Amino acid sequence: MKMKRLSTLSLLAALPLAVSLAWAADAPKGHDVGAGGEYMGGAGGPSGLSGVEMYQSTDPKAPPMTKAEFDQARQIYFDRCAGCHGVLRKGATGKPLLPDIMQKLGTDSLKVFMTYGTAGGMPGFGTSAELSEKEIDIMARYIQQPPPQPPEWGMKEMKASWKLIVPVDKRPKKQMNKLNLENIFAVTLRDSGELALIDGDSKKIVTILKTGFAVHISRLSKSGRYLYTTGRDGLINLIDLWMETPQTVATIRTGSDARSIDTSKYKGYDDKIAIAGSYWPPAYVLMDGFTLEPLKIMSTRGYTYDEQEFHPEPRVASIVSSHIKPEFVVNVKETGKVLLVNYSDMKNLKTTEIEAERFLHDGGWDSSKRYFLVAANMRNTVSVVDTKDGKLAANVKVGNKPHPGRGANWSDVKYGPVWATGHLGDDTIAVIGTDPAGHKQNAWKVVRSLKNHGAGSLFVKTHPKSSNLWADAALNPDAEVRQSVSVWDLKNLDKPAQVINLAKAAGIKEGRVTHPEYNKAGDEVWFSVWGPKNGESALVVVDDKTRKVKTVIKDKRLVTPTGKFNVYNTQHDVY
Amino acid sequence: MKMKRLSTLSLLAALPLAVSLAWAADAPKGHDVGAGGEYMGGAGGPSGLSGVEMYQSTDPKAPPMTKAEFDQARQIYFDRCAGCHGVLRKGATGKPLLPDIMQKLGTDSLKVFMTYGTAGGMPGFGTSAELSEKEIDIMARYIQQPPPQPPEWGMKEMKASWKLIVPVDKRPKKQMNKLNLENIFAVTLRDSGELALIDGDSKKIVTILKTGFAVHISRLSKSGRYLYTTGRDGLINLIDLWMETPQTVATIRTGSDARSIDTSKYKGYDDKIAIAGSYWPPAYVLMDGFTLEPLKIMSTRGYTYDEQEFHPEPRVASIVSSHIKPEFVVNVKETGKVLLVNYSDMKNLKTTEIEAERFLHDGGWDSSKRYFLVAANMRNTVSVVDTKDGKLAANVKVGNKPHPGRGANWSDVKYGPVWATGHLGDDTIAVIGTDPAGHKQNAWKVVRSLKNHGAGSLFVKTHPKSSNLWADAALNPDAEVRQSVSVWDLKNLDKPAQVINLAKAAGIKEGRVTHPEYNKAGDEVWFSVWGPKNGESALVVVDDKTRKVKTVIKDKRLVTPTGKFNVYNTQHDVY
Repeated sequence: MKMKRLSTLSLLAALPLAVSLAWAADAPKGHDVGAGGEYMGGAGGPSGLSGVEMYQSTDPKAPPMTKAEFDQARQIYFDRCAGCHGVLRKGATGKPLLPDIMQKLGTDSLKVFMTYGTAGGMPGFGTSAELSEKEIDIMARYIQQPPPQPPEWGMKEMKASWKLIVPVDKRPKKQMNKLNLENIFAVTLRDSGELALIDGDSKKIVTILKTGFAVHISRLSKSGRYLYTTGRDGLINLIDLWMETPQTVATIRTGSDARSIDTSKYKGYDDKIAIAGSYWPPAYVLMDGFTLEPLKIMSTRGYTYDEQEFHPEPRVASIVSSHIKPEFVVNVKETGKVLLVNYSDMKNLKTTEIEAERFLHDGGWDSSKRYFLVAANMRNTVSVVDTKDGKLAANVKVGNKPHPGRGANWSDVKYGPVWATGHLGDDTIAVIGTDPAGHKQNAWKVVRSLKNHGAGSLFVKTHPKSSNLWADAALNPDAEVRQSVSVWDLKNLDKPAQVINLAKAAGIKEGRVTHPEYNKAGDEVWFSVWGPKNGESALVVVDDKTRKVKTVIKDKRLVTPTGKFNVYNTQHDVY
Repeated sequence: MKMKRLSTLSLLAALPLAVSLAWAADAPKGHDVGAGGEYMGGAGGPSGLSGVEMYQSTDPKAPPMTKAEFDQARQIYFDRCAGCHGVLRKGATGKPLLPDIMQKLGTDSLKVFMTYGTAGGMPGFGTSAELSEKEIDIMARYIQQPPPQPPEWGMKEMKASWKLIVPVDKRPKKQMNKLNLENIFAVTLRDSGELALIDGDSKKIVTILKTGFAVHISRLSKSGRYLYTTGRDGLINLIDLWMETPQTVATIRTGSDARSIDTSKYKGYDDKIAIAGSYWPPAYVLMDGFTLEPLKIMSTRGYTYDEQEFHPEPRVASIVSSHIKPEFVVNVKETGKVLLVNYSDMKNLKTTEIEAERFLHDGGWDSSKRYFLVAANMRNTVSVVDTKDGKLAANVKVGNKPHPGRGANWSDVKYGPVWATGHLGDDTIAVIGTDPAGHKQNAWKVVRSLKNHGAGSLFVKTHPKSSNLWADAALNPDAEVRQSVSVWDLKNLDKPAQVINLAKAAGIKEGRVTHPEYNKAGDEVWFSVWGPKNGESALVVVDDKTRKVKTVIKDKRLVTPTGKFNVYNTQHDVY
């Protein structure tokens, strides 16, 4: 009932949780989140609480806090707020929270915002009981202080964190297991900080591996042998699928907050180079693909593309690997710039910095793999990058806060090759023409707008061998909606989607249904039923042709499954 | 006598003065140097000076200062210290001055360093009476505080500072004066913040123009019509030489501390694009060459090339313009990276970032204009960049702290095409082979080491039509040495140089002789006799063939002349 008072847009409320970080909780050893000011010992200070150690703010206009309160607030901020508002509080998906504005609002108003949330998408942390009254009071005072900056994380720190568990010469020379590796699914177990490898043929769990917290994505090396994961806490795992039981052969921490990883796909560079992008420090790092040895760190701190104001925290959102050039496509959120990073000569690094749009988030290739389409969610835009010519092809206006995942490609009966994205902020699916050579009149235009069963879609998906398009609405505040998926017949898109409640089909009461992912053959589509941490979750395998549930994978080890990555489809960017 | 206690290396003592900034004194309107902490009103504080407003440091271990002392120290630091130690005190030519190390040394030891200087090159500010005892006490406490960061300076600030004094359509369509523009000399009048334009034929002053403080360089547009200057305070002037009396047609402030400017030289881009590099903020900006309208700002904040540690203040040192590609060569001091910035498409900016060496300073082209040679003075190295292939060609070990200016090119009788640099820290001139195609065995090797008349050389120079090589020793602590120049016969370099005291020849008692510059014909070489601000200075024109003084230009308006740039030679990079 508490949720009822929130508007439709409040489905965004779920987002900060979805992207929240257990940052400090799972922080690297010796990697404190850092203090903005130093602590002044002794009693006294403006609060007059004699005997209590006060936090000495650098801003005398900020309300008093004890040192203990400040430390607690810093932790809560990184866990709950930084994902949307930024470590340095410059704002992104959420509004900026800089001290001067916060002080104008004042402690009492800030407490109201935090307790009840806003129609703009701010969650009600009080009404949902996620923060106590006391905690909300602390947070309201905390965000009136200047933001403490977390420590830098350069080569010295990366090298110290790097663990080569199994050196290359100690690894098998051939595949030592009998698995059909191309149909393995790597499934993020969000809240347990693990990754499940599931055999797509038998639907059995092969192994469960410790990873970083809330693995954001899994990516495959070009050969398909190596699987890379990045935790939101910046911990990277390199997993060798050739071992008798696939296992982690190297780890590294490339930062304290991260979202992206990929590996070199250009011919001659098979499996050779990996790249990881960080939220903090705002940077990307090129690594040896076989060992994760860090080779080159590049900062993304710089000027926003439009207003050209210096931004101290331009975070690296998605990264993809070009098949047609020795380049990575690096999307920098706050500056709105797409970087094409040529890895063929790291000592003389060639980069093309493309002015796109703000704030860049996730995206995928068109079917030709020449164009990369990326959501700029602050501007309700999909930016299209021409990676062959190294320039922006178009900015396409779509709906409210596009969130494509990697999107979905098909050859539309009417418009030719198209790519689709769902939206966080409305219930439409935007279908964009992607073939300027063959269908010029449709290129980089929204040629269709499909109606999803609700807003709050995170992912859409199809497969070259399928004639279905699937979309979730995982962040919708309505339980029925977020438990359901829409499925369209690509041969008859004028017909409304069929809506299926997959949580119900799996027998899971509480849970978001999300992240459709095809098997290699393209005849099954897998969904996660993402239940509560201490409750039940499942994976639901749907027969793509009949749209009927084929298998429900339940296992008490499957804690909060979210993203799933089929080896073959990920390796070859099939979506 | 006081100077006697300093070692030979103490000639570096002069450097901080040579590069000192009248930063805050000449700061842009409303462009305060910025406070690190806020001021806490009211009496009290650890010093117990009740009634005096104290500076509230963010570091409780730092010694107390009043607000007035802090403000005074901040000013002195920017004027006297920042050039060598960096605005953020991370160190460069001078050592890092970070609070933890400074606090360990303590106020008394720091006062000794500041008063007497060090053999490593730190000037004795007390013995030279440049700072009072009181000021030294303040500075010793100041550098134990966390460094205050100056404000950012983005597009909004640049646009607000930009003045288009004479729009393009109001400018003449042809040259309106009778000057032989190609033989004009642009002479920096350092301490008066002016530029003298002198007719190289008649040796008469054409005009004197207000510019930024201590103009670091003048550069010419490709056509030779437009002359650009950058003050150390970040003020850029665009001067139209076609006007009846040449005058400034546009100005802009691109930062608060700057050293470099150049303009597009690639065919099709004549006069079109200008670039300025800043020390603070650490960035470069691309501008419209005709108006100075700022177009694109790019940050240089990033990781050092070798240790890959984040550096908050990687300053832009020299910039040159390629004749063979639409590229600027941007040298970033603290990270040791050379950027090749392709200006042909600013919205999709292609950059090659070359790992070179630290700390990059000044440099020039080889005679083919394919290779750029730049001093990395912390590592006693000249880095050679191959701008055709976009990569490092070599790092050449030279003497102690190379300082080439733009260097000097000739075809050596024994070694073929070579380029030379003098040194701040020793009395040698390193001669480097520059022709890998024709003289492979000599390429990127020191083929000769000439003996200068003393250490502390700032500039060497020759001309394609001359057979002389000239070198100054302007920063030498010995008056006779810094007043003199060496000249070698390029046809017989085994013969020692002739040493000529040009200050004496000009009848100037106090003064450094510096910055040889040829006229267009290559038969005269001009030197500055840089006297004290309130004393006499001069320009000495030497007949290159006879090596005899031809003309001494004295004028009370010629206040502290330093750099001089002949229009034709600068336009075509003849040196």
